Amino acid sequence: MQILILNGPNLNLLGRREVSIYGTRSFEDYLPELQEAFPDFTIEHFQSNHEGELIDKLHEVGYSYHGVILNAGGYTHTSVALADAIAAISTPVIEVHLSNLAAREDFRQRSLIGRHCTGSISGFKLESYRLALQYFQNLRPKRVGFKV
Amino acid sequence: MQILILNGPNLNLLGRREVSIYGTRSFEDYLPELQEAFPDFTIEHFQSNHEGELIDKLHEVGYSYHGVILNAGGYTHTSVALADAIAAISTPVIEVHLSNLAAREDFRQRSLIGRHCTGSISGFKLESYRLALQYFQNLRPKRVGFKV
Amino acid sequence: MQILILNGPNLNLLGRREVSIYGTRSFEDYLPELQEAFPDFTIEHFQSNHEGELIDKLHEVGYSYHGVILNAGGYTHTSVALADAIAAISTPVIEVHLSNLAAREDFRQRSLIGRHCTGSISGFKLESYRLALQYFQNLRPKRVGFKV
Amino acid sequence: MQILILNGPNLNLLGRREVSIYGTRSFEDYLPELQEAFPDFTIEHFQSNHEGELIDKLHEVGYSYHGVILNAGGYTHTSVALADAIAAISTPVIEVHLSNLAAREDFRQRSLIGRHCTGSISGFKLESYRLALQYFQNLRPKRVGFKV
Amino acid sequence: MQILILNGPNLNLLGRREVSIYGTRSFEDYLPELQEAFPDFTIEHFQSNHEGELIDKLHEVGYSYHGVILNAGGYTHTSVALADAIAAISTPVIEVHLSNLAAREDFRQRSLIGRHCTGSISGFKLESYRLALQYFQNLRPKRVGFKV
Amino acid sequence: MQILILNGPNLNLLGRREVSIYGTRSFEDYLPELQEAFPDFTIEHFQSNHEGELIDKLHEVGYSYHGVILNAGGYTHTSVALADAIAAISTPVIEVHLSNLAAREDFRQRSLIGRHCTGSISGFKLESYRLALQYFQNLRPKRVGFKV
Amino acid sequence: MQILILNGPNLNLLGRREVSIYGTRSFEDYLPELQEAFPDFTIEHFQSNHEGELIDKLHEVGYSYHGVILNAGGYTHTSVALADAIAAISTPVIEVHLSNLAAREDFRQRSLIGRHCTGSISGFKLESYRLALQYFQNLRPKRVGFKV
Amino acid sequence: MQILILNGPNLNLLGRREVSIYGTRSFEDYLPELQEAFPDFTIEHFQSNHEGELIDKLHEVGYSYHGVILNAGGYTHTSVALADAIAAISTPVIEVHLSNLAAREDFRQRSLIGRHCTGSISGFKLESYRLALQYFQNLRPKRVGFKV
Amino acid sequence: MQILILNGPNLNLLGRREVSIYGTRSFEDYLPELQEAFPDFTIEHFQSNHEGELIDKLHEVGYSYHGVILNAGGYTHTSVALADAIAAISTPVIEVHLSNLAAREDFRQRSLIGRHCTGSISGFKLESYRLALQYFQNLRPKRVGFKV
Amino acid sequence: MQILILNGPNLNLLGRREVSIYGTRSFEDYLPELQEAFPDFTIEHFQSNHEGELIDKLHEVGYSYHGVILNAGGYTHTSVALADAIAAISTPVIEVHLSNLAAREDFRQRSLIGRHCTGSISGFKLESYRLALQYFQNLRPKRVGFKV
Amino acid sequence: MQILILNGPNLNLLGRREVSIYGTRSFEDYLPELQEAFPDFTIEHFQSNHEGELIDKLHEVGYSYHGVILNAGGYTHTSVALADAIAAISTPVIEVHLSNLAAREDFRQRSLIGRHCTGSISGFKLESYRLALQYFQNLRPKRVGFKV
Amino acid sequence: MQILILNGPNLNLLGRREVSIYGTRSFEDYLPELQEAFPDFTIEHFQSNHEGELIDKLHEVGYSYHGVILNAGGYTHTSVALADAIAAISTPVIEVHLSNLAAREDFRQRSLIGRHCTGSISGFKLESYRLALQYFQNLRPKRVGFKV
Repeated sequence: MQILILNGPNLNLLGRREVSIYGTRSFEDYLPELQEAFPDFTIEHFQSNHEGELIDKLHEVGYSYHGVILNAGGYTHTSVALADAIAAISTPVIEVHLSNLAAREDFRQRSLIGRHCTGSISGFKLESYRLALQYFQNLRPKRVGFKV
Repeated sequence: MQILILNGPNLNLLGRREVSIYGTRSFEDYLPELQEAFPDFTIEHFQSNHEGELIDKLHEVGYSYHGVILNAGGYTHTSVALADAIAAISTPVIEVHLSNLAAREDFRQRSLIGRHCTGSISGFKLESYRLALQYFQNLRPKRVGFKV
Repeated sequence: MQILILNGPNLNLLGRREVSIYGTRSFEDYLPELQEAFPDFTIEHFQSNHEGELIDKLHEVGYSYHGVILNAGGYTHTSVALADAIAAISTPVIEVHLSNLAAREDFRQRSLIGRHCTGSISGFKLESYRLALQYFQNLRPKRVGFKV
Repeated sequence: MQILILNGPNLNLLGRREVSIYGTRSFEDYLPELQEAFPDFTIEHFQSNHEGELIDKLHEVGYSYHGVILNAGGYTHTSVALADAIAAISTPVIEVHLSNLAAREDFRQRSLIGRHCTGSISGFKLESYRLALQYFQNLRPKRVGFKV
Repeated sequence: MQILILNGPNLNLLGRREVSIYGTRSFEDYLPELQEAFPDFTIEHFQSNHEGELIDKLHEVGYSYHGVILNAGGYTHTSVALADAIAAISTPVIEVHLSNLAAREDFRQRSLIGRHCTGSISGFKLESYRLALQYFQNLRPKRVGFKV
Repeated sequence: MQILILNGPNLNLLGRREVSIYGTRSFEDYLPELQEAFPDFTIEHFQSNHEGELIDKLHEVGYSYHGVILNAGGYTHTSVALADAIAAISTPVIEVHLSNLAAREDFRQRSLIGRHCTGSISGFKLESYRLALQYFQNLRPKRVGFKV
Repeated sequence: MQILILNGPNLNLLGRREVSIYGTRSFEDYLPELQEAFPDFTIEHFQSNHEGELIDKLHEVGYSYHGVILNAGGYTHTSVALADAIAAISTPVIEVHLSNLAAREDFRQRSLIGRHCTGSISGFKLESYRLALQYFQNLRPKRVGFKV
Repeated sequence: MQILILNGPNLNLLGRREVSIYGTRSFEDYLPELQEAFPDFTIEHFQSNHEGELIDKLHEVGYSYHGVILNAGGYTHTSVALADAIAAISTPVIEVHLSNLAAREDFRQRSLIGRHCTGSISGFKLESYRLALQYFQNLRPKRVGFKV
Repeated sequence: MQILILNGPNLNLLGRREVSIYGTRSFEDYLPELQEAFPDFTIEHFQSNHEGELIDKLHEVGYSYHGVILNAGGYTHTSVALADAIAAISTPVIEVHLSNLAAREDFRQRSLIGRHCTGSISGFKLESYRLALQYFQNLRPKRVGFKV
Repeated sequence: MQILILNGPNLNLLGRREVSIYGTRSFEDYLPELQEAFPDFTIEHFQSNHEGELIDKLHEVGYSYHGVILNAGGYTHTSVALADAIAAISTPVIEVHLSNLAAREDFRQRSLIGRHCTGSISGFKLESYRLALQYFQNLRPKRVGFKV
Repeated sequence: MQILILNGPNLNLLGRREVSIYGTRSFEDYLPELQEAFPDFTIEHFQSNHEGELIDKLHEVGYSYHGVILNAGGYTHTSVALADAIAAISTPVIEVHLSNLAAREDFRQRSLIGRHCTGSISGFKLESYRLALQYFQNLRPKRVGFKV
Repeated sequence: MQILILNGPNLNLLGRREVSIYGTRSFEDYLPELQEAFPDFTIEHFQSNHEGELIDKLHEVGYSYHGVILNAGGYTHTSVALADAIAAISTPVIEVHLSNLAAREDFRQRSLIGRHCTGSISGFKLESYRLALQYFQNLRPKRVGFKV
């Protein structure tokens, strides 16, 4: 089962950036733990600060992978283009966030991309990614890789 | 580990209500499956259509249980009183929703209660509850039952 | 033909409350006149100041009665939970109001529950209820008790 | 008892226009049925797509007829001039709509003319007109033709 | 000097309509008094409830008359078309109102047509018209009939 | 002189809930001190987390008691039904709040119930109740128990 | 192929009105050039400053002509009635504008009628009409006169 | 007949300030011309850039003068205190403006003080003052100096 | 104990201004009664219609007096400068209002200065001042003159 | 004559993406047809999902090409930077859209880039591009390649 | 070169007021350091808490000084009158702020006066003044004292 | 002392783009003058039209350089991702703008990135950059390169 974890802007700084909000562990450090926890999955990780590259990547995997776990960072709230890309592809996308957006600034209260995602998981720091993978795993005995 | 699943208004009709949105399975039917999947947990289930009873219940368990999984239904978007109750207690609360709120009506885009919850999981139908339990389980080897 | 008249908050005070707006006659005094005017109907009357009890009642009758006439009072403008309950059931619901909401305060200009009702009748004081019953009666020779 | 049914823009197309919303019967076809149902009434029908003609007509009958049943169509939401005309005359005006406005577009949620009408009936398709006539008939034994 | 007094919707009812706001005197009764007070002026009066006729009239006189005194009634707040007509012509237009709009409903606080008028006079009941004529008269020794 | 202190949602947790905002003393502990300070008053205390019960209680005492001191908690900002109940009864109601609402979240800036209260006292923690009682006591030599 | 060019308010003044925005050529002068360029088309031209007449005309041709090219002028932004008329008929309607609305006042940024049109062409001065005709001509070898 | 012309902030710079909007003549230069035109009036002129001094002056003359002509400049749109002062006194106040506010910035579209004035005259440059005086003079044969 | 009662714009007219809202008694008449009721206090009274003088006065007493009772009148809703002054000083300030702001115009619903005050008392007419003094007196046995 | 067709995000997926909205034909398939229809033009096509690359491309051609036909996709509604780029260059830009934006989501109702374009063509699916080319062709006998 | 530093409300308390935001140094202490750093300048300093006095001062120097450095404090966000004064004079005005307004409350996000200033410098605490002076000094070899 | 001047979209066109707003000098032409004026600084210049590249660059220098001077162009008002990047790094960032944003379009009135910058300098054309450098230089004798 092929899963892409797609991380958006500033997530390359995880672990050293605003640690009171985002925690002290980098994603690179966390990824092997995730892979180990889900041995049946092939987990690909891609991070970019470029809106266009995130869209390119979604196009690339969006008709063949079983799932995408997307943390769009700041683009969550501003990118119609990214939302359109999610709507365009057939692979289901799960929106994740490290912090609990509902407890943050006003401009983070509305996700532009959410409407085209299967679901959303936010507030559990790095565990948000694990829960998203868990969702795909739980789905396994049933039909996989279709939009719900 | 003591967990309360607290379901708000109209969730007693699950399985027979707007099935294209909420699915065809009742919560009563799903609950044993959940309990079985998490044998280490004592899962209590309480449903009410009364805002006041939801608050009463939060007060009752909110200083002793290890976690609350709350689907506040329509009160999610209108109840300051419920939000205040979550803020008042010490047990961590996870907000869950069956449907993907971001894909629904405008008045469902903002959660009043979210800011006081640990995190939010929405859009995975009944699986949203399982993921919330999973979160508590993953937490286990570390410290449990504290607000993050 | 089984009809529920469901009255919300403060309607128990009808006849003694803000009489310049709501008139001087109590609903208890008016109900027998209504029942007499529609002898083929079994008219049940239920009033509560509790949002939750109004939802409970809708659930109770909402799959068997032929119609509900609902004056939700102040909950008209604030209750997503009540609106969801109307959407959940199969019995058609008619929204009635004593006063002409369009001539009152700004916050009474928008009905949250209206979108799931069959129709709305407002401004005719107690006669609003009679017109709603008349609607159900006119419907009789045709199919009764289905949502339009 | 002299009643004017005043139909606004596009109601001349009733029965052939957006039939899923407005139904398949024309007003001309329905009118004789209405007249027959209320033999004591002289029912006049006037339709125009011109805002000005609707105002002219209200002025013409507004000091002598017993009632006006007004479906202002799209002008409901945009015409201050029509609202002023209703306020100017002494004949009571009942606002009717075929569709349930509360279930339609945002710009149909607010009636500019409603505040000067006696009451409002919407959502019952052509039956909305019958209920309005019924209101005037019920009023008969009491005082007729005065604003409530 | 040729002046058009152009009265919009419901002003034909002046003197009998909402007299606490608009006063008890009709415009027809007042007009001769105005004409007498300004003997050098040829005062034409035109009233219509039709937005289109008001525009037609502005077009008709708007390149030859010395001035227009316009009370657009309810169209003041809703008619972009009328505003465009004022912008299109070369005759200066003065906006007048009988009532003090600033003391009335919210939707009367903003004039759509005002931006293309020379100036605005409101709140002096019928005297608003006299002051507008006075403005044109005071202008006389200087250049007349040009937009300021 | 009969006074009801009516406390709304979460006020049963006073003293243990968000103590930096609401203080560390419970209302039960404070009540005897209040009663002692106003020996001429019969002070009844009622707390509920249920909007409907607060309305029921207002109806029960609202035509016989001399005054109501109401801390509606989170319902202050969301309950039209509660506001209507205050308008419906004849006993004067004073709105009190422990915290200074003007210094808190945006959604606490507007009181829906305030418009039907005699006055409002907020920000003095438990002393807000004492000042409200003081108001009724100062009123004593004059007329008592009528709305101002 | 029968096409109606329907021009709204103030377009009769084209060529002499606000020439910096709308240009110096009248529509009457331009029409023969258009007809000559599209010899296969029967082009009818109708202009009115009356909202009602525009609606009447749409009704008249809206079930038989192959296309309507509509410049609704100021009614573009204010007329729900006109929008409803476009929705009611079966002939496809193309919205055109002389000026680039996106570069003008705020109230011209939103078209009420656009949602029921096939498409929109604006900013090319009189050439906007030619492009609309071109659209119909390009459509010719395929199916003509149906809504897209 | 005693009239106060009360000029607010920056009007002392008239004639040298933004002359394309306000003209090139100072108020001091214009005042004698006004006084001469209305020989029966005692015209007092007071200018201040201080909101408080404008309020003080209104208090001073507001129970004895026959009229106040007020150009509140920038305070027109921001001063609740000035509006309250106008409401507090018994002398009628006419609001005047040199420029046509409807053609200027958004924040000049709403007058806070207008609701308590008798009427408003704007856009006629210095002639606005003359028209206001004319209003008081026309009033003369009737009752003078009362609020209309 | 040194207390300043600081009254803002138009409060010098108390007793003669809009008496249905503000009552018929002047503050000068009321002040001795207040002083007599609180013999331990030195009560200073200062009134000004000038925003700047109110700020100056707050600066003057704001590091030495035990309390300020501030009725900022119309500046309550518009003065950021006054709010900043309250934040700047160390003496606690209590906001009082004669009328119940919640029952008045929209623009009086939000207090700009409230967020920096200790608390707020409104709606009790002149008694609002007495309650504020009472608050300071009740505080006496404890610590006085510190911000709560 | 050198024309750039500049396609923004997700337009590389045309023909396989949300086909009910955007149609089933890819742009690559359509381009040769376009080139053939306008043999006098050199049509260059560039597509990118990167906002920055769209800006770079505009800069590159914006002082030498005769025209740009821009479908900015989701950036239409969010990119001030792209709008600034259009304003910066001298080549005229025509905005095109496949779908009729006026019939879609709220956030697609306003084009940020439109104000700096010559004109806009939307709703004609792939034909929107042909009409834009037609515009440039019609312009030919006159002056070409200047902003209108 | 004559420069006025004009400080608005509460800036006389600098150094003792909200020191975490504004710092611990008074302006009086800082001024000599500034003067010394710019020996070629005659720096005048004026502070007032009165909006009117700030306007008076701008009028006094606004046609002769080379520059004004204005920290309008709370009036920045509320004073149309002050903005008009800046527009009225010919001396260039630079807006300075001690704190970074973009990081503060919502009501501090918009400067009403900014549109008429040459530029704005904020966030550098007392150094903001030095940079403004530096701007004037850098300008020296070129033309000085004219609006840019 | 290492300083990065980071220029965003369209700033590569400086000197040839909208010269009435941005001036006629290119940044490349200006940079040597700046470097010469601050010989102690190593000034690096980087310009990109790509949001992602600006973020990448901030990450690259944001833990080692002494300061960043950022003109984010159009991204200033739309980029949450860029704002998050500024918050993430430890190097202080100064926001500069060539034009006075307060005098421009509405959508340029609010800076999304400002809240995480040390301060903001706008309106001085190219001199804005010099003042930002000056700020860093003035800081030198004290602590350098830390966020204020």
